[in-house]
Amino acid sequence: MSLSIAHLGPPGTYAEQATVLYVNWLTQTTGTEAMLCPYPSIAQSLQALATGKTQLAVVPVENSIEGSVTMTMDTLWQLDSLQIHSALVLPIAHTLISCAASLDEIKTVYSHPQALAQCQGWLGAFLPNVQLIPINSTTEALQKLEDDLTIAAIASSRAAELYNLPILARNINDYPENCTRFWVVSQAEADIIHQLPAQNPTHTSIAFTVPANVPGALLKPLQIFAQLGINLSRIESRPTKRSLGEYLFFVDLESDVSTPNMKTALGELTAYTEVIKIFGSYSVLSVGSKG
Amino acid sequence: MSLSIAHLGPPGTYAEQATVLYVNWLTQTTGTEAMLCPYPSIAQSLQALATGKTQLAVVPVENSIEGSVTMTMDTLWQLDSLQIHSALVLPIAHTLISCAASLDEIKTVYSHPQALAQCQGWLGAFLPNVQLIPINSTTEALQKLEDDLTIAAIASSRAAELYNLPILARNINDYPENCTRFWVVSQAEADIIHQLPAQNPTHTSIAFTVPANVPGALLKPLQIFAQLGINLSRIESRPTKRSLGEYLFFVDLESDVSTPNMKTALGELTAYTEVIKIFGSYSVLSVGSKG
Repeated sequence: MSLSIAHLGPPGTYAEQATVLYVNWLTQTTGTEAMLCPYPSIAQSLQALATGKTQLAVVPVENSIEGSVTMTMDTLWQLDSLQIHSALVLPIAHTLISCAASLDEIKTVYSHPQALAQCQGWLGAFLPNVQLIPINSTTEALQKLEDDLTIAAIASSRAAELYNLPILARNINDYPENCTRFWVVSQAEADIIHQLPAQNPTHTSIAFTVPANVPGALLKPLQIFAQLGINLSRIESRPTKRSLGEYLFFVDLESDVSTPNMKTALGELTAYTEVIKIFGSYSVLSVGSKG
Repeated sequence: MSLSIAHLGPPGTYAEQATVLYVNWLTQTTGTEAMLCPYPSIAQSLQALATGKTQLAVVPVENSIEGSVTMTMDTLWQLDSLQIHSALVLPIAHTLISCAASLDEIKTVYSHPQALAQCQGWLGAFLPNVQLIPINSTTEALQKLEDDLTIAAIASSRAAELYNLPILARNINDYPENCTRFWVVSQAEADIIHQLPAQNPTHTSIAFTVPANVPGALLKPLQIFAQLGINLSRIESRPTKRSLGEYLFFVDLESDVSTPNMKTALGELTAYTEVIKIFGSYSVLSVGSKG
């Protein structure tokens, strides 16, 4: 059996790195092999899955410094038919990649805006006069480096290896505890789920809207979980896109959806929410990362 | 008296447009004039204010489609010495600006990442094969357009007028009800506050961290506000940047900080929070926008 997995490309992105870790784990556990399918955006990765072009997708959910990946959450809410199967955490260590002989020669640095933001302190200290150019992914500018010795890119050390390019500085992110959480997603009720290794789910992710902007509208849902001893590991609001001030809430719960407490909680929740979507229960995989 | 006001530049951005609306309101109300000071990023606008280079700053807080402007919230939390004085809501209508004769000639579209995200449906339908380049502001690329007929930028129609550039398509945002909320910010306790028109504050913004990741850690603060009949108009989580899964919460409350209920609430809140910051009370100005 060979699986197809959508992820943000081009090769060398952190999303691809997370996908490779997942595939290695899968191969070791079950012997299953997989084909990686890079897409130019996160939304397109999830759409490829929803339309059956791939069987799984690996998408970033949140970064410890920059916060939620809103495109993942908005697309998941819109597509309506997807289910989270696993989570994994990837440590992020940015490197400065360039064919320049030294830092003095660098005039321009390219990277994804999140990576530039995560290295702004280091850039201010060591390259205070360079021009910073935000681009679509950490790997998009790598092919330019050999032709121009005055430019550099911020990406992973793995990307430097893949493209056979020299690293001028390692671990340049301002916060050492930088990591990104990814979700492995399938279509809901897809056959593929039964072919993956069985796990003991520890987390459930849901999203809901509350009926009106009154005192305590959000309080009641949170109260239900607290009274049943179910911990929220994350709550995140997103605009409904209807009008300013209307939100939907994404909540990660530390419990399996099939436990009696969770069944009670989700049953009670319907009385206090407008629309509720359950994205499934999953476990956090140990795939060789420190997370 | 002439005021200096920092905002995201260069001229023609929505932040500048919001600043102009605020200044017009201020001039009509008090006769006060103001000098606009554009900065290359939102963080630099707030830092200019914090270091006394300007007396006010106008910064975007949230967009009805794309949600919170995380750079504003993270910088406000870090700087620690700023106070919100007013809010205002600006309707957002994006246009495609280019010197190309038709859409077919366009190969690249530049804009701020939020603007690109707000037009992704339109771009997918009408310019499916172009390269999308995120840049620091909607107006940063406008000066390039006359020299290169294959590029376009997404910005306001006002920006096209300012730079005397042709509009190829109007109202290209995917959701028509697109608006952005801005805050007018001063230094806390600054003299300038007493020189601005007196208002009846209707909202208070605060941010806090909760002690531990236990069931109900966030529940207690919300309970305090609900029991005192104080409505939350927004709750937003941001990473503490210490480790994945640790958050701080930004909350907007529909009440003035000087009311007895709010004094009680904020007093009780200290028992259930680690760090709490009060960004001040303010009213939402009507400045000629539909918001």
